[in-house]
Amino acid sequence: MLITPGPDLLYLTGYHAIPLERLTCLVVPADGDAALVAPGLEVPAAEAAGVGALGISIHGWAETDNPYALVASLVREAGIVALADSMVAAKVLALRDAMPQVHQQLAGPLLRDLRMIKSVDEIAHLRAAGRAIDYVHEQIGDFLRPGRTEREVGDDIAEAILEAGHERVDFVIVGSGPNGASPHHELSDRRIEVGDPVVVDIGGTMPSGYRSDSTRTYAVGHAPEEFTNYYRVLQKAQEAAVSSVRPGVTAESVDAAARSVIDEAGFGEQFIHRTGHGIGLETHEEPYIVKGNNEELRAGMAFSVEPGIYLSGRHGARIEDIVVVTTDGVESLNNTTHDLLVIDPSFSG
Amino acid sequence: MLITPGPDLLYLTGYHAIPLERLTCLVVPADGDAALVAPGLEVPAAEAAGVGALGISIHGWAETDNPYALVASLVREAGIVALADSMVAAKVLALRDAMPQVHQQLAGPLLRDLRMIKSVDEIAHLRAAGRAIDYVHEQIGDFLRPGRTEREVGDDIAEAILEAGHERVDFVIVGSGPNGASPHHELSDRRIEVGDPVVVDIGGTMPSGYRSDSTRTYAVGHAPEEFTNYYRVLQKAQEAAVSSVRPGVTAESVDAAARSVIDEAGFGEQFIHRTGHGIGLETHEEPYIVKGNNEELRAGMAFSVEPGIYLSGRHGARIEDIVVVTTDGVESLNNTTHDLLVIDPSFSG
Repeated sequence: MLITPGPDLLYLTGYHAIPLERLTCLVVPADGDAALVAPGLEVPAAEAAGVGALGISIHGWAETDNPYALVASLVREAGIVALADSMVAAKVLALRDAMPQVHQQLAGPLLRDLRMIKSVDEIAHLRAAGRAIDYVHEQIGDFLRPGRTEREVGDDIAEAILEAGHERVDFVIVGSGPNGASPHHELSDRRIEVGDPVVVDIGGTMPSGYRSDSTRTYAVGHAPEEFTNYYRVLQKAQEAAVSSVRPGVTAESVDAAARSVIDEAGFGEQFIHRTGHGIGLETHEEPYIVKGNNEELRAGMAFSVEPGIYLSGRHGARIEDIVVVTTDGVESLNNTTHDLLVIDPSFSG
Repeated sequence: MLITPGPDLLYLTGYHAIPLERLTCLVVPADGDAALVAPGLEVPAAEAAGVGALGISIHGWAETDNPYALVASLVREAGIVALADSMVAAKVLALRDAMPQVHQQLAGPLLRDLRMIKSVDEIAHLRAAGRAIDYVHEQIGDFLRPGRTEREVGDDIAEAILEAGHERVDFVIVGSGPNGASPHHELSDRRIEVGDPVVVDIGGTMPSGYRSDSTRTYAVGHAPEEFTNYYRVLQKAQEAAVSSVRPGVTAESVDAAARSVIDEAGFGEQFIHRTGHGIGLETHEEPYIVKGNNEELRAGMAFSVEPGIYLSGRHGARIEDIVVVTTDGVESLNNTTHDLLVIDPSFSG
């Protein structure tokens, strides 16, 4: 298994290496001890992260060495190497060329059970991330004002994400009015108007490496009745999906629980994405809560439940919580209200 | 050429796509028109970014489709595909398996001349990034205080990076005392002490997508004489390297210009990394300013000049500016003083 800097390396070793063009690569043989190939100047950071204490030998290389040949010498006569899913093509193809007779496959399938079932410590980290992003949502009323642009609001949110204890801002979506109908719209210079519904989907990375991700939809003043009607449907759908989570049910059944409520209300065509994604050291990881995924949920799995309804060109709504499967049900890690949050547009705080 | 979300896609199309597990891929044939394969829910964002206006057809796919087969159908009978250097292994190997008879190579060599020579607009974006990070360095005296941890200082710096106009914080290195001797140390809970030299290397991404990166070394109170002596050597080395930049000289000659000053002063063994890296839509890109790179510098190239001297276990220093090669010399995009910045430890601002 060949693991370059990214979530798999962090998971396996606790070493948060900066992804660089210079090769850092953990070499894990099927039998025997693991080794870390790293640029000489990264060796102190790897040692400080406790890589050596794990019994992993560190092979530093100098600026003019060929680190791919060094990895190949450690792989020896193996016929298959499994590569970290996040390894970049520049390194995938350099490793292929350094070991042309070795078949490359993905390490994801080998690591998925380990990474998908969160330990008690990992759940504590995700819980802290959930509290931090909830704290940001509690401040959104101070930022959303008619006349401000999405970008101005987004800049305030980004600062609040850091102040809430995150180490990094991962994404800030402020979808006002018609922009709310594009689920992955980020920020624009559109000015928020009285009557706009606004989708706010935000997340960051905590110092632990674990991620937050939560969406709430706000109304700046009095939103159109058409909107408030389908918002109530969405709220029921999200609650139905969360309530359906427990060990033994399939991932797709949670998607179906949300979708059936929305379908019955006649908005099925407007719910244009899956219901959720796993979360941990990555914002999007397994399990995916989507039709066709018959993976059975197990205690310790963590994922988003985030149905949405989008009326193209007009407005949209999404409600998203991160939940963890417990031994007998579900725990929600996001706990701000699901009721439509109406912001008084005349308030100047 | 197959280009997934990342700096190459942004460069070629202006589309800042979120890297997702779902496949988004620009397909550029050697002859004929380009096409963009994208998840259905990303199509509005791709259209908003002007992809359609470039004459690129957009092929949206539904959650249950196989997008790799769709890309293969667009590649048709090509014998070679060039992949974006930043494409992740999960997509590299899925594309390999969807087109087993097609040889994969890297797109980097095809795009390097385009991306390495910055246009007038790109230089303006880098200049704005340089001013923004200079503004953060001007505030460091407010953050560095004896008794504060590197992490506390780093959190303040991260907020200042956003306030200065960056859209994202890319890295915050605060290397105090012995941590300054590890060039890629980030942040720790070490408390800053009176007499510490502190290396502050920071950067972020502007709304344009272009990056900043600048290092200054500070002294909190009276630093050891051993340190101030080699700091003066470093300052001369950095200035010698910047002064050597002009069209027609090689990248390695700029490295040699810094290194010879440091070697002559007897600190050659303590300058443990190359002198610099290109910068643009990525923090590290070509050209690399390193021994062995005989690439001739051309007007429009942008890169860092950042020699350092590191005394393991004691302290270190680095000075880094981003410079652009002009038609007859060099322009520095970072312009805060290179003199050692001594912070009065008794000041409480």
